[in-house]
Amino acid sequence: VKSISFTAVPGLAEIGSGADLAATIAQALRAADLLPRARDVLVVAQKVVSKAEGRTADLDEVQPSQEAQRLAQLTGKDARLVQVVLSEAQEVVRAAPNVLIVRHRLGFVMANAGIDRSNVPQPAGRETVLLLPRDPDASASRLRSRLMEIFDVQLGVIVSDSFGRPWRNGVVNVALGAAGLPALVDRRGERDRNGRNLEMTEVAFADAIAAGAALAMGEAAEGTPVVLARGLDWSAPDSNAAALLRPRQQDLFR
Amino acid sequence: VKSISFTAVPGLAEIGSGADLAATIAQALRAADLLPRARDVLVVAQKVVSKAEGRTADLDEVQPSQEAQRLAQLTGKDARLVQVVLSEAQEVVRAAPNVLIVRHRLGFVMANAGIDRSNVPQPAGRETVLLLPRDPDASASRLRSRLMEIFDVQLGVIVSDSFGRPWRNGVVNVALGAAGLPALVDRRGERDRNGRNLEMTEVAFADAIAAGAALAMGEAAEGTPVVLARGLDWSAPDSNAAALLRPRQQDLFR
Repeated sequence: VKSISFTAVPGLAEIGSGADLAATIAQALRAADLLPRARDVLVVAQKVVSKAEGRTADLDEVQPSQEAQRLAQLTGKDARLVQVVLSEAQEVVRAAPNVLIVRHRLGFVMANAGIDRSNVPQPAGRETVLLLPRDPDASASRLRSRLMEIFDVQLGVIVSDSFGRPWRNGVVNVALGAAGLPALVDRRGERDRNGRNLEMTEVAFADAIAAGAALAMGEAAEGTPVVLARGLDWSAPDSNAAALLRPRQQDLFR
Repeated sequence: VKSISFTAVPGLAEIGSGADLAATIAQALRAADLLPRARDVLVVAQKVVSKAEGRTADLDEVQPSQEAQRLAQLTGKDARLVQVVLSEAQEVVRAAPNVLIVRHRLGFVMANAGIDRSNVPQPAGRETVLLLPRDPDASASRLRSRLMEIFDVQLGVIVSDSFGRPWRNGVVNVALGAAGLPALVDRRGERDRNGRNLEMTEVAFADAIAAGAALAMGEAAEGTPVVLARGLDWSAPDSNAAALLRPRQQDLFR
């Protein structure tokens, strides 16, 4: 019987700027007796990766441009926050009251360039926001190398974040970064049981893992930012999360 | 330790038109010693629900309209198939070579109105396609009632299907229908550990379950269309999958 489990890794120490994320995760895994096995995939929330990488911006040091001020007025958001969003973005996809969707310089189309104000501990009187990791695929790859060294086993790592969708309510988690697994599985050429070519030819494997893992992460105050996925199987070659980005020229809605 | 499992239900009998899907699933669950517990969620692929409900169309009986012929030429698809897609659709969202995305009459924005040619057994010389269930929330609800009667336990049921996304490659599974769980969780008013209001206020709970379950389903020839999800927890009130549809007036890309 094929069974896949998503287990929240308990007891993770608070992650500060410059924290050794791999060592912190390894310690929590050991303490919980969750020793990784071959083909386990660790799903790590973007927030703790960004925190460990010190990807914060201090809003008090931001000078909003005229464009940021205009968009702040339109969206009802803090002009300094909008300025940080713009500095992370290639282009504004949609601005409306309460809505600021951009194409992040990494290619992700997402709200507020993935910038979070919640869950960032605020130094007294300072307003700090958390940006995405500079290169989430590289973050996943580094984390994976360190964890494979520590546990001497083949692992996958996904850095995940929650995304809205244009036509569906509610957020789901997707993979911002991935290493050691096929983020995108190409099934072209495979046939169904009637010998017909499959109509769905590409499967967003890492996004499905990120979505499932979020169910074990929970949210907000009681949330757990690291989840161990076990029982996954794949034969496709590794690809990173950048493979999940539809090239802008193939954007179906342009 | 919070752990969620997705287990493929093995040994499911082939589902034909008019099959008793609940009885078939119950039999497979019993044979596999997977007795449902309270709050287990059964995720059922749309295909077997549609088959059981006899939602097929015979392409040989379809007369393509001029519009269907025009779109068939543009997309490179069978004009009869395009005609069936149009008869299931409110509007065409995007047509291009190999691409026909519509708003289904049920509100889903999806390729080909969710119509599948693969995995439908073809009577000799006939070309049959499979439509979505007439009302997937009602399908989930009926299936849930029957299974709760059989096993005398509170269950959730999701009817799932794979969807493309505008800016990301690859498909993920989402919930077309849901019963006995909150398809959409509203977190407005909740606060994070720093006392700040959450920025992400709605979570697509049923879509995340559908995405995770697809990892256990596998695909194509060797696929298993029913998955038992266990270990999920929720406190929000039940909502069905229609709650996941963003009203057309709130479409962010219009």
